[in-house]
Amino acid sequence: MTSASIDLNADLGEGFGRWRLTDDEQLLSVVTSANVACGFHAGDAVTMRRVCARAAELGVRIGAQVSYRDLAGFGRRAMDVPAEELAAEVAYQIGALQVFARAAGTRVSYVKPHGALYNRVVRDEEQAAAVVEGVLLGGERLPLLGLPGSALHAAAEKAGLPVVAEAFGDRAYTAEGTLVPRTREGAVVSDPDEVVERSLAMARSGVVTSHCGRPVPVRARSLCLHGDTPGAVALARRVRARLEAAGVRVEAFA
Amino acid sequence: MTSASIDLNADLGEGFGRWRLTDDEQLLSVVTSANVACGFHAGDAVTMRRVCARAAELGVRIGAQVSYRDLAGFGRRAMDVPAEELAAEVAYQIGALQVFARAAGTRVSYVKPHGALYNRVVRDEEQAAAVVEGVLLGGERLPLLGLPGSALHAAAEKAGLPVVAEAFGDRAYTAEGTLVPRTREGAVVSDPDEVVERSLAMARSGVVTSHCGRPVPVRARSLCLHGDTPGAVALARRVRARLEAAGVRVEAFA
Amino acid sequence: MTSASIDLNADLGEGFGRWRLTDDEQLLSVVTSANVACGFHAGDAVTMRRVCARAAELGVRIGAQVSYRDLAGFGRRAMDVPAEELAAEVAYQIGALQVFARAAGTRVSYVKPHGALYNRVVRDEEQAAAVVEGVLLGGERLPLLGLPGSALHAAAEKAGLPVVAEAFGDRAYTAEGTLVPRTREGAVVSDPDEVVERSLAMARSGVVTSHCGRPVPVRARSLCLHGDTPGAVALARRVRARLEAAGVRVEAFA
Amino acid sequence: MTSASIDLNADLGEGFGRWRLTDDEQLLSVVTSANVACGFHAGDAVTMRRVCARAAELGVRIGAQVSYRDLAGFGRRAMDVPAEELAAEVAYQIGALQVFARAAGTRVSYVKPHGALYNRVVRDEEQAAAVVEGVLLGGERLPLLGLPGSALHAAAEKAGLPVVAEAFGDRAYTAEGTLVPRTREGAVVSDPDEVVERSLAMARSGVVTSHCGRPVPVRARSLCLHGDTPGAVALARRVRARLEAAGVRVEAFA
Repeated sequence: MTSASIDLNADLGEGFGRWRLTDDEQLLSVVTSANVACGFHAGDAVTMRRVCARAAELGVRIGAQVSYRDLAGFGRRAMDVPAEELAAEVAYQIGALQVFARAAGTRVSYVKPHGALYNRVVRDEEQAAAVVEGVLLGGERLPLLGLPGSALHAAAEKAGLPVVAEAFGDRAYTAEGTLVPRTREGAVVSDPDEVVERSLAMARSGVVTSHCGRPVPVRARSLCLHGDTPGAVALARRVRARLEAAGVRVEAFA
Repeated sequence: MTSASIDLNADLGEGFGRWRLTDDEQLLSVVTSANVACGFHAGDAVTMRRVCARAAELGVRIGAQVSYRDLAGFGRRAMDVPAEELAAEVAYQIGALQVFARAAGTRVSYVKPHGALYNRVVRDEEQAAAVVEGVLLGGERLPLLGLPGSALHAAAEKAGLPVVAEAFGDRAYTAEGTLVPRTREGAVVSDPDEVVERSLAMARSGVVTSHCGRPVPVRARSLCLHGDTPGAVALARRVRARLEAAGVRVEAFA
Repeated sequence: MTSASIDLNADLGEGFGRWRLTDDEQLLSVVTSANVACGFHAGDAVTMRRVCARAAELGVRIGAQVSYRDLAGFGRRAMDVPAEELAAEVAYQIGALQVFARAAGTRVSYVKPHGALYNRVVRDEEQAAAVVEGVLLGGERLPLLGLPGSALHAAAEKAGLPVVAEAFGDRAYTAEGTLVPRTREGAVVSDPDEVVERSLAMARSGVVTSHCGRPVPVRARSLCLHGDTPGAVALARRVRARLEAAGVRVEAFA
Repeated sequence: MTSASIDLNADLGEGFGRWRLTDDEQLLSVVTSANVACGFHAGDAVTMRRVCARAAELGVRIGAQVSYRDLAGFGRRAMDVPAEELAAEVAYQIGALQVFARAAGTRVSYVKPHGALYNRVVRDEEQAAAVVEGVLLGGERLPLLGLPGSALHAAAEKAGLPVVAEAFGDRAYTAEGTLVPRTREGAVVSDPDEVVERSLAMARSGVVTSHCGRPVPVRARSLCLHGDTPGAVALARRVRARLEAAGVRVEAFA
């Protein structure tokens, strides 16, 4: 008897103009929360509008995937952006996405930093506070989706914003429950079967096997699925099917 | 005995990052409506936030000055942007500005196209309709500030959006009441005294002397002041002072 | 007995940062001239360097595919760029590519406008002259690859620059030997067999069947192959194989 | 009896499109070396062309002021750019500037990193090596202008590139001869008279008074003048006049 439920999130709308990256149509049929790129690392206005419209039709929740302003680097290059600029740029991106969410009859429901900014606000308290300030500028108390224990979550809680913890079925964890850095061997779980089973373990029991073979608690209300590699959508489907087959309810976080 | 009233609008926030152009602080003390750049031809997020905050303090109305995406050309180069893209880009800019207007306790109250887009939608019906669609995407029935008789105003009225006509104290008019093209000699009125008197005539009687010396009706609820040239702010102050001395109420359009 | 020879050109390096578009490795094994994107509509510095290095290894000639500055629109939106700006931007792009061509032990051998600029300079004499001025700024008398009879070729010849005429195996021609506009039905030849045979006819006899069924001379020293659609590379290979099988020498223009 | 000579360098061409920042015409009449912005933090193609033409007329040496790709942040935000990208982007900028230098009948004679990149390569060996690789890609053995003792100079010397040391008349130095960080009080010398005298001391004797009052050797073949603040050009003129009055030859480094 289980009443476990889990949210599935993925990055969407990560093309730009002529270029496409994510298979938005397919991903929207798998996830419950769509992290929509807002134009700073990817995401043009037409794509944002289209993804929001389709997400609304399918009942998929829309989140603002905010980033450093870096199209050339896809937001993957850490930048020392002063807090005032970062806060304003985060707010700008949220506002731009809100217009398309509202036009689709729904709303932006959460915020998730992208790429280098995501990694930076795990520890950088100043940038974490700036992201939170940017969210507050938007006027709605939007939850911040990110790593449990991150500076971002600390800053959000300090400001009274909700936080949502996410976990990764395709990443190795240390015995302390943190991610094994990508620079270390074995950081990424590449075997699809293992990704599926780890995702299920995280969703059902909140416990996975750490890098060094010991059980470690990884409590998350959302699992992050990747959609920008070959086979990614197929794997995402398998994860969802396995969760549902095991009786886990796949639904957006409250 | 007169009950004439007029709105004064000007472009603001037209710097970008390290670069400044408009003297926002001074202009905000003169105008009743601020056309705030939204990041496509000028206007970074920090500046947008700051201008909105100050405008709110001073009771100056905030409008979205939407543009083609062209920082290098300052939005002054006509572009054949497909309607779908243009509509979405207009909506994107409005949404981005709305977040800062709301954060300042106020709202975006109107939309005014900038530069080459402004000129294009005087006659281009497809782009005019796209701008209107972009405004509608935003969900509020925002008025469109522009040239009376323009394709933009026709498209707005067709869609049920309010229109606000503006006139220029520093531009010559034809006998038909349209602007003398900038490519023609005498298109711009450079004598400050003449600009002041023409502005007053427009505001009080709605009649100015045309390029060829005949009285021509120029009815406008708003006068556009320029703020990006030396002496521009001083001239704007003189226009406002002259209007007020003559009993014209300077106030935002309803 | 034939001594026919033909150049095959294609657009390459049209990704940007994280995004890929053209299959550069495959295309470089087919073409004799590579139109390398220079960063204004596509093409980042890493890609430019890589494509130049590989082209040099394979003996493929490098050309600068110059464009309007429009990443968001992939250079496909016509822009009213003043001549002074356009000339300088063309020179800037050529200079940027030259550094990578030189680093690879070769040089930029020609210039080809991209997208909306390509179409514009078919008739726009001012922009055509600006492109030519941009090429002249570079100091080398680089040939301009484009449509025969275009304003670009007229401007180039007036300036003493060589011109190279290109033709399209996948486009329909009018009885006058001009391209059937894309807005007209049948403008694009979609049957691969027909593309192959038309390409051969152009290369061998310089005569193809026009849209209305009559033979029309289409003399070209280069055929443009497309590389950004599914099946494009395979079709390009077929065109080359058919040309070679028919005894046409496939080689870069002199 | 003195045979001291010194180069004076300043950042130029740091506008972008509609925006102006540096008074290029005035600065070119003062300096012997112009660090010309290449479009990544500032500097459009028209400005680059104009500055190169005027510099050539006046016999001012042209250097490529290379930067992170960051118009919004004016290149002042440190970025973790991977070495391969940074090298290619440096080469791209040099190539773009070379075309305008050549068109003006001269050449790019040196390279100087800008802003955050300048600061980063004082210590970051990987980025320093990437900048040097970018210079080498250009094929000419261009000298690198920068801080003596920097990782950039070490990387350049390792690669066999010449280095040119610069000093700042308006910055305080530690007893070890390094710059007092801007975050420390007194880092910037704001008294114009003091800037003039310190500049003279650096040029003539290579010794200045450190932050803590002791003489410290600051050997430099070039003094960096600032041109982007009010009064900057006037101060630059005073520095040059003082140097010349004291018999110091003001001339570009060999």
